[in-house]
Amino acid sequence: MLRLSAKDPGFAEAFARVVSDRRESAVDVAADVAAILRDVRERGDAALADLTAKFDGHDLDQTGWNVDAATCKAAFDALEPTLRAALELAAERIRAYHAAQLPENRDYTDAAGVRLGATWNAVDAAGLYVPGGRAAYPSSLLMNAIPAKVAGVERLVVVTPTPKGEVNPLVLAAAHLAGVDEVWRVGGAHAVGALAYGTDRIAPVDVVTGPGNAWVAEAKRQLYGVVGIDMVAGPSEILVIADAKNEPRRIAADLLSQAEHDPTSQSILITDDAAYADAVAEAVELELAALATEKTARESWNVNGVIIDVASFDEAPALANALAAEHVEIATDDPESLMRRIRHAGSVFLGRMTPEAVGDYVAGPNHVLPTGRRARFSSGLSVLDFMKRTSFIQLDAAALEAIGPAAVALAEAEGLPAHARSISVRLNS
Amino acid sequence: MLRLSAKDPGFAEAFARVVSDRRESAVDVAADVAAILRDVRERGDAALADLTAKFDGHDLDQTGWNVDAATCKAAFDALEPTLRAALELAAERIRAYHAAQLPENRDYTDAAGVRLGATWNAVDAAGLYVPGGRAAYPSSLLMNAIPAKVAGVERLVVVTPTPKGEVNPLVLAAAHLAGVDEVWRVGGAHAVGALAYGTDRIAPVDVVTGPGNAWVAEAKRQLYGVVGIDMVAGPSEILVIADAKNEPRRIAADLLSQAEHDPTSQSILITDDAAYADAVAEAVELELAALATEKTARESWNVNGVIIDVASFDEAPALANALAAEHVEIATDDPESLMRRIRHAGSVFLGRMTPEAVGDYVAGPNHVLPTGRRARFSSGLSVLDFMKRTSFIQLDAAALEAIGPAAVALAEAEGLPAHARSISVRLNS
Repeated sequence: MLRLSAKDPGFAEAFARVVSDRRESAVDVAADVAAILRDVRERGDAALADLTAKFDGHDLDQTGWNVDAATCKAAFDALEPTLRAALELAAERIRAYHAAQLPENRDYTDAAGVRLGATWNAVDAAGLYVPGGRAAYPSSLLMNAIPAKVAGVERLVVVTPTPKGEVNPLVLAAAHLAGVDEVWRVGGAHAVGALAYGTDRIAPVDVVTGPGNAWVAEAKRQLYGVVGIDMVAGPSEILVIADAKNEPRRIAADLLSQAEHDPTSQSILITDDAAYADAVAEAVELELAALATEKTARESWNVNGVIIDVASFDEAPALANALAAEHVEIATDDPESLMRRIRHAGSVFLGRMTPEAVGDYVAGPNHVLPTGRRARFSSGLSVLDFMKRTSFIQLDAAALEAIGPAAVALAEAEGLPAHARSISVRLNS
Repeated sequence: MLRLSAKDPGFAEAFARVVSDRRESAVDVAADVAAILRDVRERGDAALADLTAKFDGHDLDQTGWNVDAATCKAAFDALEPTLRAALELAAERIRAYHAAQLPENRDYTDAAGVRLGATWNAVDAAGLYVPGGRAAYPSSLLMNAIPAKVAGVERLVVVTPTPKGEVNPLVLAAAHLAGVDEVWRVGGAHAVGALAYGTDRIAPVDVVTGPGNAWVAEAKRQLYGVVGIDMVAGPSEILVIADAKNEPRRIAADLLSQAEHDPTSQSILITDDAAYADAVAEAVELELAALATEKTARESWNVNGVIIDVASFDEAPALANALAAEHVEIATDDPESLMRRIRHAGSVFLGRMTPEAVGDYVAGPNHVLPTGRRARFSSGLSVLDFMKRTSFIQLDAAALEAIGPAAVALAEAEGLPAHARSISVRLNS
């Protein structure tokens, strides 16, 4: 853990290093991924079968290519009642929050007599990547699938690796609850290729979202433009801004809730009390010792954890904007006034009773959020990622007389005479 | 030009080939671009100077690295009055249309007592790529710059190559009118690298938009995630749906207004009258002969032009949705009913008096639109490309008691005990 004090002479430099350190995979998998995508494009299902045998160790013809709806429903019905109710509450709250994101169409006629507007439509089909193993989270499936369904996507396809053929029943239950239409037992870059190009078995989709390892992320990046994708995701991160009135173990628990995700995750505390900073550091050690995920959380905290004490919280927004963190928790007396000054953040958690983890599951807003300072320019996942806008324009003869000559002048100045001609041939008619 | 009739036995197959043919550059510039970006990242301005000398044939230290505001203003003041008024009308109408796109913030408390919301902010800085030579269009500068300024972007940077040091005065005039803050005389992949990474002279930006050649497009793709970018753009295209009541030369002019952009552009006509199809084909030849851009337009029309006659316009929406064209013109008696069935299109132009070219300049909606079937999943440029959304969540003790236990159950099921702990440590307190 890195301990910084804003009043130290070397602070600006040390903080700049925290900001510029992206903690992202340096492995260059571009060439490997390009070869895999080429293979899927050329050989389709045969490539998927070969690559699944190689990477996941099972034969799709034997284990089955997909998981049918009845199996997903059975997984849901078999859930322990408390867990089932929790999943239902999460789904319901996510649905309600995202339903309010549906954009409105526009249609109006302006003073020049020009009718203008825009119509939003859902994409026809979306593909969701669901990782296998440690990161196979039903909550993540809900956070990707429900916005797609709320947007009106008719065909929602999950691809997920099932190492040695084993499926995750929680993921299948969530797929049932979210209304997923197809579940394919393929993962890795080849699964993303199948979604983008289509194979004999898997029809192509228009948008691919969902988290994945470096190969999956690179496949999405290479296929950007063939399909739409969500933002490239890096390691998770939290910035907690907390005063000394918070019980130290609560803040310690918040910091560790990010640290336990992965050794590359990052937790940062900003506080206005140096003694409190030390108290939280101590509480982190106590909390760590009691965690089943201690090994991961300890590595993350030791390597990437940061505690910064500042003279006044007035300094915090500038630091927060530079970090542009995925999650920002503000546990102070007046969290609102700090939030108003934070322009760059994925999601903000206000007050002492809003641990970030409620946002991961049941609050309602999406937990797929920009990481690695991408909150400077990108947003969390929303229904808009599964929709697109078509603008429209309608002129009558009078409107064309009013604004057409200006377009003719500009087209001629740009050296595009056919543009000018398509307008002038309709003027004075 | 390819002449198809929907009633011919081979139609489905021939049409599928039109749909799948992307007409995009097959040149693989990925490795070249990666090397250029590495060079800019490592050597900054020195790399920019070397690459500008190599590709644009001038010495930046002699010609000047940037164009100052006074020079842009002088270019604007020197405009011929009709052209200046046309540019001002365009800017004013683009501004009005995009101002209405500004999204609304949300802030509400739901039945469980959970406060939820979302706040939109502009990115701090945006970079606009403006091509040199044939494709240096002032209209394109307005269409990129004005949405950024309407969004509230404080620093708006143009990069543009000036081959042999020559600048385009129309582009400078448009930069002045749109309120561009900096104009740098660099182009190519290296200019995009400079915007993303920053150099000593050019501070980094958060979003890069604007059209460019294959190198520029590949640089944007490789930097996606370091900065935000607009959609990958391919050759321009128009689908015209027209009945026999339209004067053939008008429809011919509309088809050629796309064809004159580039030999790879595509113009497609769908009509319900085979004799009218022939009349338009004849009119295209007459119009071509009178065009200063005849060479480009003829090559585009000969190689990529398509005329399809259908038995009824009832067939048109399915064809239009499969093509998902950038521009769709509907010149029929009841364009509205066809538009309602077209889900995938960049922009729709309704009626006999709405040639697509009015949308390129003065109608108001953005002319930066998805090409190459990307209207299936992406939208034209808008203020949203220069903004991002931060969600927020606030719970009090009662709200946490209400929804917290469900989050604890899910966190435990996902094997994330620190997530559960950050909530449970606040329950029953």
